[in-house]
Amino acid sequence: MTQVPHFLDQRAYLSPDRPAVLTDDTIWTFSDLRKMALMARDDLVHRGVKPGQTVSLLVGNRPLSMALIHALTYLRAVVVLLNTRLAPRELVDQVNQAQSPWLFYDSQFSDRVTEILSGVKAQLGLQAVVLEDLFARSEARRSGGPSRESIDLDDDQALIYTSGTTGRAKGVRLTYKNHWWSAVGSVLNLGLQEQDRWLLCLPVFHVSGLSVLFRSTIYGIPVVLHDHFDPERVHRDLQRHRVTQISVVATQLERMLDVPGASYPGTLRVVLVGGGPVPGHLLDRALKRGVPVYQTYGLTETASQVVTLSPEYIVSKRGSAGKPLFSAELEIRQGGEVLPFDQVGEILIRGPMVTPGYRAAAGVEGLPLDGGWLRTGDIGHLDEEGFLYVHDRLRDLIISGGENVYPAEIEAVLCEHPQVLDAGVVGTQDSEWGQVPVAFIQVEAESQLAEAEVLAFLRERLAAYKLPKMVYQVDEIPRNAGGKILRRQLVQRLSAGSRDIDED
Amino acid sequence: MTQVPHFLDQRAYLSPDRPAVLTDDTIWTFSDLRKMALMARDDLVHRGVKPGQTVSLLVGNRPLSMALIHALTYLRAVVVLLNTRLAPRELVDQVNQAQSPWLFYDSQFSDRVTEILSGVKAQLGLQAVVLEDLFARSEARRSGGPSRESIDLDDDQALIYTSGTTGRAKGVRLTYKNHWWSAVGSVLNLGLQEQDRWLLCLPVFHVSGLSVLFRSTIYGIPVVLHDHFDPERVHRDLQRHRVTQISVVATQLERMLDVPGASYPGTLRVVLVGGGPVPGHLLDRALKRGVPVYQTYGLTETASQVVTLSPEYIVSKRGSAGKPLFSAELEIRQGGEVLPFDQVGEILIRGPMVTPGYRAAAGVEGLPLDGGWLRTGDIGHLDEEGFLYVHDRLRDLIISGGENVYPAEIEAVLCEHPQVLDAGVVGTQDSEWGQVPVAFIQVEAESQLAEAEVLAFLRERLAAYKLPKMVYQVDEIPRNAGGKILRRQLVQRLSAGSRDIDED
Repeated sequence: MTQVPHFLDQRAYLSPDRPAVLTDDTIWTFSDLRKMALMARDDLVHRGVKPGQTVSLLVGNRPLSMALIHALTYLRAVVVLLNTRLAPRELVDQVNQAQSPWLFYDSQFSDRVTEILSGVKAQLGLQAVVLEDLFARSEARRSGGPSRESIDLDDDQALIYTSGTTGRAKGVRLTYKNHWWSAVGSVLNLGLQEQDRWLLCLPVFHVSGLSVLFRSTIYGIPVVLHDHFDPERVHRDLQRHRVTQISVVATQLERMLDVPGASYPGTLRVVLVGGGPVPGHLLDRALKRGVPVYQTYGLTETASQVVTLSPEYIVSKRGSAGKPLFSAELEIRQGGEVLPFDQVGEILIRGPMVTPGYRAAAGVEGLPLDGGWLRTGDIGHLDEEGFLYVHDRLRDLIISGGENVYPAEIEAVLCEHPQVLDAGVVGTQDSEWGQVPVAFIQVEAESQLAEAEVLAFLRERLAAYKLPKMVYQVDEIPRNAGGKILRRQLVQRLSAGSRDIDED
Repeated sequence: MTQVPHFLDQRAYLSPDRPAVLTDDTIWTFSDLRKMALMARDDLVHRGVKPGQTVSLLVGNRPLSMALIHALTYLRAVVVLLNTRLAPRELVDQVNQAQSPWLFYDSQFSDRVTEILSGVKAQLGLQAVVLEDLFARSEARRSGGPSRESIDLDDDQALIYTSGTTGRAKGVRLTYKNHWWSAVGSVLNLGLQEQDRWLLCLPVFHVSGLSVLFRSTIYGIPVVLHDHFDPERVHRDLQRHRVTQISVVATQLERMLDVPGASYPGTLRVVLVGGGPVPGHLLDRALKRGVPVYQTYGLTETASQVVTLSPEYIVSKRGSAGKPLFSAELEIRQGGEVLPFDQVGEILIRGPMVTPGYRAAAGVEGLPLDGGWLRTGDIGHLDEEGFLYVHDRLRDLIISGGENVYPAEIEAVLCEHPQVLDAGVVGTQDSEWGQVPVAFIQVEAESQLAEAEVLAFLRERLAAYKLPKMVYQVDEIPRNAGGKILRRQLVQRLSAGSRDIDED
């Protein structure tokens, strides 16, 4: 057990006047952010929110959301960050699983809240309160000076249900310790400068967004907060706010690069790209424009990025996710054996940023740990120097005629085709080969691309056993909030036959 | 218990080719430093050094010393850092207290080693080995790639006997946890840039030097290593190596400023000044020259600086030591009560960088803790915004006619006199007032300063009860390696009569 000063209190004490949250309408210093958080805390206490309780949030990227997340840290309540893109049935599941008696929400999601209230177990006694109502009390606060609030690093701070690329969602427990070591590991990798500013256009309910909230507080740097991703607005604010860091997923990077006439200011020093491998052609475009791309690999279970490739290695280590953060370790294993470099197996991670476990329907559930190591369920290898290459999800692996076929590899090649905007590959049963790959592609609106042409393109670049049995053209490749392909949805489309599919 | 990857192994894996140690003769990368450390480790294992053993070091600031300190971290041995300026009798005391069966030393200290060997308890079976002999074995080493070495943060890394400004030295235990949180707290305060380089001219046997060794490894930045303080050489290397950070004590800063024609390059962004308050006239000189002075307050018990004043506050918060590091807390207490701001009492510190305790003659000894807080024995106050002002050592406090008289305050005023180079004040018994202050001053060689003139100068600036009863002129004010005045020696001179004193 390690007690440390409360993050926001300490930051408001050390640098009260530095900006903390910037939007088009808001400039909050750390002192302001703390005042708002304390206002909400008082209200929550008044309503009867208790330490250790789970409190569900269905909120967008707003300053009040950030203040509320901080407010809950004073109460030692555990925040359940609901993904606002989920269907009501999924949200009901998560609130039930988390046994949360509280739901605080943005008024824009009122309809869904009505559905959640009618769907959750009655015994929860779920009380739903709209966000603004938590900030209605006003009280005078002394500002500055040391506070006596502490944080026990082993306490749970959040519960994030993994976005369910396959199977049913599990709640990942994230402790203050996880956030602290992630933030510190990241700063030892990326550095920290007085003028740093982080643009957050990823949702705060996602670990990639939540981690930026903690970094901002721990580092003492402002978050430039966007309520949704708009590439033009991102470009405007990179300039206007002299943003130094931004986290995006690959498709967002592509949309940023598509903005006509957009330039990247010299102040921008880190563009973290996560949520899956960055296609080669996209990397090339970004490099040509001088974008300082850091490829990353991370999971909700590791409190965000835990492996990062810095720009100087993008050419020499093409396709690698990089090396771990200072306090994280990587191993590749198969059948319990640690594999030497260049051999492919499951990726395991160890370190103080790794979640202590899950919270599932049956209550607290252990981690898939192997001697203290988190089994990620991802396949990859380390090269001789220890750079990580992520091949694919273990469960997405296609075994065709005894050969391992990695969907991500085929997707990357498909995306190199000039007409392909996005691609997803899944396996399907085959009487001859056991499994065979099937491809889904998204091409530019109104255009068509013949299957034969796609296969000819792939044949020049891939071994024969990796060639998809079929190529379907779709309007959009389904991806979750973290940018990861929802392969389960593609598999469902396959089993649903041609109903939803615009066949080639 | 938190296990993390071994600091040096992880750094050599993550950034093998970055420079780690730079001297006039040496350029070691982190990969080189690790190879040297492993070479020594193998030798130490061969000699029979065991985990948990204490190993005394009597070494200067040399690359081999740094490699050896790292080597001992692989063995989980505890390094006893002997102050090379101590007399043999004091060194014998510390080796006996630490129950160290090993003594590794620089050949320049051979004479003292002979005396130590003849002085320590026979049952220790002390074996003394000259530094170079530990690096005689050469073995091929694989380079790069992840390692499997771990560090348990709760393990003791070092034992540093406090330099004994009063009383008998106690061994301060420093754990990896202490170093880690100190390094991380410092980086959150000072920032971290890729081109950072730290010039180390303070002794590595002192916590201010040892902490730089750990910061270098944790941050992945090089140490520009000087074997002693030479202001001309410091200036040369600030330029030549584009140094960004340096730690000095006030007298060293003064000697740097005295170097004719010396300029401070724009790359130098942090000059940490510790070891006691910086006299106002010195601050003014430094500011006028554009030196980015960070005043600091720290103890061996806090693994180096734990409170820092950044340059933007030097004028508005004149005389303050600043605010604590991100994970440290401050309190002012008197008689067990926490005092409100502006009231003067003992300074207490809490945080994960605080030592778990002492090792004294009788074995392990507790800390002077008060509800988890370290009692520093220093007197000070916090202002309304939480800035710390350090007045003096509690035990140096002079109570004269019921009034508190702080030696440091009188010393600071004495140093404002244009002819006074350095000053020390202690209390002496007085039949009328209980205690009265007595001043020692160092003036420029060959010059004299009349006591009456000094007293007249003070009378304009200090209350009458603070005026020294006597003013002695001495060749030099005795200071320890950390720059702190050895008031005990001044008291000894007083009781020895005028023998050692050039009376005014």
